[in-house]
Amino acid sequence: MKVCASRIRRFLDELAEFNATPGQGITRMSYSPQAHAARAWLCQQMEQAGLQVREDAIGNVIGTLPGTRADLPSVMIGSHFDTVPHGGAFDGAAGVIMALEIATLFNEQGLSPHYPLEVVALVEEEGASFERGLLASSAMAGHISSQMLESLHDSTGISAAQRMSEAGYAPQDVSSVVRTPESLKAFIELHIEQGPVLEQTGTDIGIVDVVVGMTQLSVTLTGKAGHAGTTPMDKRQDALLAASHIISQVGDFARQAGDATVATVGKLRVHPNGANVIPHQVVFSVDIRSRDERKLRQVIDQTREAINQQANQGITAAVEQTLYIAPTPMASEIVHSLEQQCDRLGYSRRTMVSGAGHDAMVFAGLAPTGLIFVPSRDGLSHHPDEWTDAEQIAKGVEVIFHTVKAMTEAKNHD
Amino acid sequence: MKVCASRIRRFLDELAEFNATPGQGITRMSYSPQAHAARAWLCQQMEQAGLQVREDAIGNVIGTLPGTRADLPSVMIGSHFDTVPHGGAFDGAAGVIMALEIATLFNEQGLSPHYPLEVVALVEEEGASFERGLLASSAMAGHISSQMLESLHDSTGISAAQRMSEAGYAPQDVSSVVRTPESLKAFIELHIEQGPVLEQTGTDIGIVDVVVGMTQLSVTLTGKAGHAGTTPMDKRQDALLAASHIISQVGDFARQAGDATVATVGKLRVHPNGANVIPHQVVFSVDIRSRDERKLRQVIDQTREAINQQANQGITAAVEQTLYIAPTPMASEIVHSLEQQCDRLGYSRRTMVSGAGHDAMVFAGLAPTGLIFVPSRDGLSHHPDEWTDAEQIAKGVEVIFHTVKAMTEAKNHD
Repeated sequence: MKVCASRIRRFLDELAEFNATPGQGITRMSYSPQAHAARAWLCQQMEQAGLQVREDAIGNVIGTLPGTRADLPSVMIGSHFDTVPHGGAFDGAAGVIMALEIATLFNEQGLSPHYPLEVVALVEEEGASFERGLLASSAMAGHISSQMLESLHDSTGISAAQRMSEAGYAPQDVSSVVRTPESLKAFIELHIEQGPVLEQTGTDIGIVDVVVGMTQLSVTLTGKAGHAGTTPMDKRQDALLAASHIISQVGDFARQAGDATVATVGKLRVHPNGANVIPHQVVFSVDIRSRDERKLRQVIDQTREAINQQANQGITAAVEQTLYIAPTPMASEIVHSLEQQCDRLGYSRRTMVSGAGHDAMVFAGLAPTGLIFVPSRDGLSHHPDEWTDAEQIAKGVEVIFHTVKAMTEAKNHD
Repeated sequence: MKVCASRIRRFLDELAEFNATPGQGITRMSYSPQAHAARAWLCQQMEQAGLQVREDAIGNVIGTLPGTRADLPSVMIGSHFDTVPHGGAFDGAAGVIMALEIATLFNEQGLSPHYPLEVVALVEEEGASFERGLLASSAMAGHISSQMLESLHDSTGISAAQRMSEAGYAPQDVSSVVRTPESLKAFIELHIEQGPVLEQTGTDIGIVDVVVGMTQLSVTLTGKAGHAGTTPMDKRQDALLAASHIISQVGDFARQAGDATVATVGKLRVHPNGANVIPHQVVFSVDIRSRDERKLRQVIDQTREAINQQANQGITAAVEQTLYIAPTPMASEIVHSLEQQCDRLGYSRRTMVSGAGHDAMVFAGLAPTGLIFVPSRDGLSHHPDEWTDAEQIAKGVEVIFHTVKAMTEAKNHD
């Protein structure tokens, strides 16, 4: 009775059936009929693993194995079960299945830990339904009010609150979802890497020590439109030319900074966007991330300086910082435990940053938190071809299982 | 009885009344009710100027003052009367009014030239209705077949032929529009500059010696999508970064080439265009123009080389040359006559390239052709604020009037 890759495979396959776009990737929006059916399946699996199951006011599924000693805080494990449209079967799901498999192992092995074990399948991490991701973890951390759920809307203009109500939940009671720090001993998540590093280095497990800090800038450069044929080169105020000078530098700033600093211009629109018209306006995003807050701020400053430099040449520039999150360290004692289990089990490991935000980032404000990555084939994610072998997930599950087993059995609780 | 700025003003104001978007610039599509009403007005004005008026098979309005000697070729003057959507009251219209004013002067002065004078108001120069501009001049040059009119479509999918038929014309007889070189002694057009040079140098008249050669490239760069947070800088194939390196060089190639060479990236689309996704594909246009065909080809080659350089770094590139037109010189004897008239009248002049294509470019394949520019305020064109003072247009009309008068009266015809 040990971690079972074929069972993990079956869990993944069954969960992937709850999908609005068969044959075109996995689409499971948080309050869709597919999510509804997935919840029923999750409840059933959790019950079969001997857990006490409930759905909370916003549709998270929570299964509890009570601890043998009253009033001890829980060790919580899990991830999210929503997807982006046409996404993959592993992003989020791998972590939910990790938790299901561990509950199943606890059950099979007849474990009765001192501390409760909680298995969670969280809604709406992706932010694909409304304008905001990390919704369930943020609600548990007390960052979401019922008013906020009224004011978040989906692309058709319907509020998150209404969608939740229609799906049978109670957004007005979102405060009931809040967890106190005292109720949680730890939170541990498994997630696919969504990047190429583990696969390319042949590493089994990535142990995240920091979720990167991140910022997003929205940059608007305004020059002057003109006819592409009749405006001499020295009389132009070409917003796209100015943008290209900035874009070609931003990556270099990140490379020079090191410390897993990355910078990306992913979104760009040109106005009026005609082949024979000099662009008068370009709007683009700059996404900057780093494990080191000092480096993050440095690249932001360098980017602003590069923008200002263009603004000196007949271009006006407006920069809006639409997001700023400082780097979030994972709990060192959990990182250490995960490392020890890897070494004991003989799995290769690598200390990594998480370049993306995950529910673990939010839980880190609430309880000691750990996050491990398993390899993503070709680094692909948010894509129908997203893939991780069940055997690779099983190694991660095994690492977390032994960590969680030790934590829930610990005699010393403080 | 000389060139009258206030009459030119009135002609422009009256023609501008035929407008589908009052208060939001001038919109006069070639086969619209507004163009229909404009034609009736044009016929009326031409008749009042003593011309014999007809509409041809595709809706051009042509007024003729017959010559006193049989079978001599015509001196044709005019421009187009269609506009882009929400364009200005001067692009095209200024040249049509030039021709109307000159016909009026011939009439007022009781001139009976040896050679016929033909005044033309041409349709569909802008290409705003179907996929092709310069349609009337191309038809007169014999480049347009009735089959082509069947296969050109507007944005709603209706063919040019059908639009023409519905407007009362005979697209099946487009060959009747063709002019032989023998039937034309010359074509002379006046147009607004659509650029800033005349205004900024305080020059009355631009005399075009060459319409620039031009090319358009459509460049597709394909890299690999990736998560902006989880893909290290050295593992990226960022199509937008590659594009920005190219775009930041293209203008320099043109500047270095000189000879009125310009290069513009006006249109660019990013895929998938998400703030946190490394762009996997960018498609952009490169518009290159020069008076010197060697320089034009040189900048095309340099641009292709810059693209290939990026293609060496994990990016695949596809380049399609969607347009190539060699530079078109204007007839040197007409250029010379226009220069002489400028100097005689005391108007400042400047030899210029035309950076944009005009009907004159097409007529140059058919007959000795001349083109003059009058200043555009702020260099603006294709814009509701497009403006040229009637007094400025009057100077251009005067220059052409005296040139045309001399040409139509010439005793020596060869």
